[in-house]
Amino acid sequence: MARVLTPRAEDFPRWYQDLIAKAQLADNGPVRGTMVIRPTGWAIWERMQADMDLRIKEEGVQNAYFPLFIPESYLRREADHVEGFSPELAVVTHAGGKQLAEPLVVRPTSETVIGEFMAKWVDSYRDLPLLLNQWANVVRWELRPRTFLRTTEFLWQEGHDAHASEELAREHARNIHRNVYQAFMEELLAIPVVPGRKTKGERFAGATNTMTVEAMMGDTKALQMGTSHELGQNFAKAFDITYSSKEGTVEHAWTTSWGTSTRMVGGLIMVHGDDNGLRLPPRLAPIQVQIMVVKAGEGVVEAASKLRDELKGAGVRVKLDDRADIPFGRRAVDAELQGIPIRIEVGPRDLANGSVTIARRVDGSKTPTPLGDVLGAVTSALKADQQRLYDEALAFRAANTVEVKTLDEAIEAAQTGWARVPWSAVGEDGEKTANGKAVTVRCLTRPDGSMPDSDEEPGLVAYLARSY
Amino acid sequence: MARVLTPRAEDFPRWYQDLIAKAQLADNGPVRGTMVIRPTGWAIWERMQADMDLRIKEEGVQNAYFPLFIPESYLRREADHVEGFSPELAVVTHAGGKQLAEPLVVRPTSETVIGEFMAKWVDSYRDLPLLLNQWANVVRWELRPRTFLRTTEFLWQEGHDAHASEELAREHARNIHRNVYQAFMEELLAIPVVPGRKTKGERFAGATNTMTVEAMMGDTKALQMGTSHELGQNFAKAFDITYSSKEGTVEHAWTTSWGTSTRMVGGLIMVHGDDNGLRLPPRLAPIQVQIMVVKAGEGVVEAASKLRDELKGAGVRVKLDDRADIPFGRRAVDAELQGIPIRIEVGPRDLANGSVTIARRVDGSKTPTPLGDVLGAVTSALKADQQRLYDEALAFRAANTVEVKTLDEAIEAAQTGWARVPWSAVGEDGEKTANGKAVTVRCLTRPDGSMPDSDEEPGLVAYLARSY
Repeated sequence: MARVLTPRAEDFPRWYQDLIAKAQLADNGPVRGTMVIRPTGWAIWERMQADMDLRIKEEGVQNAYFPLFIPESYLRREADHVEGFSPELAVVTHAGGKQLAEPLVVRPTSETVIGEFMAKWVDSYRDLPLLLNQWANVVRWELRPRTFLRTTEFLWQEGHDAHASEELAREHARNIHRNVYQAFMEELLAIPVVPGRKTKGERFAGATNTMTVEAMMGDTKALQMGTSHELGQNFAKAFDITYSSKEGTVEHAWTTSWGTSTRMVGGLIMVHGDDNGLRLPPRLAPIQVQIMVVKAGEGVVEAASKLRDELKGAGVRVKLDDRADIPFGRRAVDAELQGIPIRIEVGPRDLANGSVTIARRVDGSKTPTPLGDVLGAVTSALKADQQRLYDEALAFRAANTVEVKTLDEAIEAAQTGWARVPWSAVGEDGEKTANGKAVTVRCLTRPDGSMPDSDEEPGLVAYLARSY
Repeated sequence: MARVLTPRAEDFPRWYQDLIAKAQLADNGPVRGTMVIRPTGWAIWERMQADMDLRIKEEGVQNAYFPLFIPESYLRREADHVEGFSPELAVVTHAGGKQLAEPLVVRPTSETVIGEFMAKWVDSYRDLPLLLNQWANVVRWELRPRTFLRTTEFLWQEGHDAHASEELAREHARNIHRNVYQAFMEELLAIPVVPGRKTKGERFAGATNTMTVEAMMGDTKALQMGTSHELGQNFAKAFDITYSSKEGTVEHAWTTSWGTSTRMVGGLIMVHGDDNGLRLPPRLAPIQVQIMVVKAGEGVVEAASKLRDELKGAGVRVKLDDRADIPFGRRAVDAELQGIPIRIEVGPRDLANGSVTIARRVDGSKTPTPLGDVLGAVTSALKADQQRLYDEALAFRAANTVEVKTLDEAIEAAQTGWARVPWSAVGEDGEKTANGKAVTVRCLTRPDGSMPDSDEEPGLVAYLARSY
């Protein structure tokens, strides 16, 4: 097959941008750092949203919507928060033909404005927990933008909760992290992740604890796929979110926030893509099966349509491509670029034998299949290929992760993969040394992989890697 | 029942704001004119979105996403457009800690940025029609904001298409207007609408034709519930959207755009609300049935839970309210405020007789019903009440619309309802006279109610009304 993309091994960043352009996932927007999400890319995000939204609701969270514009003064109320975000803000100074009395910040995240309303809505312990989520656009001015991974405007969900105690806040943040984020990424995106705790230096601005799910990309770098924050009482104190307890005392609530974004589309590409394009996990794929009329011929379109109806009736997301006037090779290349899990090629010659060809994107296999066996073959292929993508990514991560004992070894190993090293061998000073060499501590976990309660626990393991 | 809201008849605008506050649909945001959509309000919008999104896709339209920030120069490219929107723009002048070289407009609508990308994506007649839609937030600085109806930031869908001819563009715009907008409003929202053509003076900035769907609110004013615009070649010329035709010539495309917004939530309230709160059409209602434990008692919660499972299993959207520690009356008032179509009251006394009480929001009826008959009664009540809300709104509109012959009569009639008057008796001069008296021409239709092809057709009927 002719070379469609810059090969991954030759230039990974270029391959990534090539793929996005040629699969028509996104374009650069007119303002530097912004992006246009094209229909093919949007369909992926739309399915991500729908699946994650269900998981979020299963945790008892309700969706709501808060304004895009935040008075600048709100951000100043929490000292760490404003310091963390100030350099990234976009500011509206004029509106309705006039200069505004107070500049408005385009939300970089909504802790502050949501904090203001939590304070209004929470009165008694009966109003807690208050569990909210919104799907929204946010803006953070990026110096080094990259499509999907780091854009000036991006789309995300941001969850915001208020709880009656630190323990309840912590438990909820962990439930979201495990039941929503980790499960979503592993089950739907077929991306294995390492859940862990961020170091103090990598925490969200204003948080007392940040948890992350980290995934290994195809170039062995790490991508932070989502984060959940315990905010302690910092925002509750800044915005006066108080409640009267059962005992009649007035207490500050404990809040958390948690977010995932269109960045996950970038992660999906970099984990599953190959030199022919994207490979979509079947559970995620907007189109699971593309039935392709290879060329016109007696009964070909009819047979293809019948197959489409049969698969559709069985709940498969299927599309019929009967554009026989466009060369088959070009259409097949496009389907590969877009990562459609299965192509069913329907041509006059095969049909004469009562069969079609099933081409699987994951391994490139092509199997002639009798018409009567297609539904069964498709159903089992979709299931197997979902698992296979996950297994491949897991094996790749294992093959590129090494256990080391010292900081120097970890920094060395992180040049070509991930290093697992005792956190005691790194520490905050070691972290700075690593950062100076473009290596970061991605997260801390307990030796058994579970989530630490503090950075101070003995025996913690640090993951060091280069990252996006 | 105690007075919960300002009565509609006493002060309609106040009733409207009361209802929004007490049903917890929305709050005012911190920046004037913005709003916070609370979970109860959001759930309604979310269901509107889901239903309309399906209808849009059935018309062959694909979703995409375009950036929030538009370079100011883009808006200037279409003269009428910039003139129409300039006074309403919010402008970002600073970002990333610096003053920007070119100010960025927060999108008030996306014709310009989408035009730019259509020009890139459209090459040949084979690329047409290009049918796009996005769900997004937009900002228009409002001098007289009103929750849901006219907010500085609002949420909407905006469709944008490019076609190979004026006829194809017109046909598509009309299909959207009828099959998506009118059908959605009548079938899902139970709101009868008058589809018609806007006069020249009421057209969208940059359009050659604007079509509207107008609904009568409970105070007899009109609300524009959605619009579809034929943009001619205005934007195609401004953004150079050209295609090579089958014949090999290079032609400008014909574009259309069409939008509906969170304003529809305001319309829903003002059409169906009564002095006890909102009344939600059952097909739209996020919760169709609330099963209420009247008070604790032997087997009450169990019976209520069983009923919940039975209804849920039958596909009814049901919620169990077993908060027996909160007075039943208060919970019932809240359910009425929120417009939940059916309450099933489960109490120890009724249960002893093997029955529960079905309370219908639409007519306030309460019917003791044997447990075994509940599912059947609920199913038929949901269907009947959807129709009843529509019928009531239609009858109300008919009762408050009069046929008149002259402009003066029309302006007079429009003080207390809608006037249907020959357009020839009004004309552009008459329109200005009416506008001076706070009456507008809502739309023009043919005598048989169908959509005119131009304002010049003989025999057109004008609808005059006060409006939001």
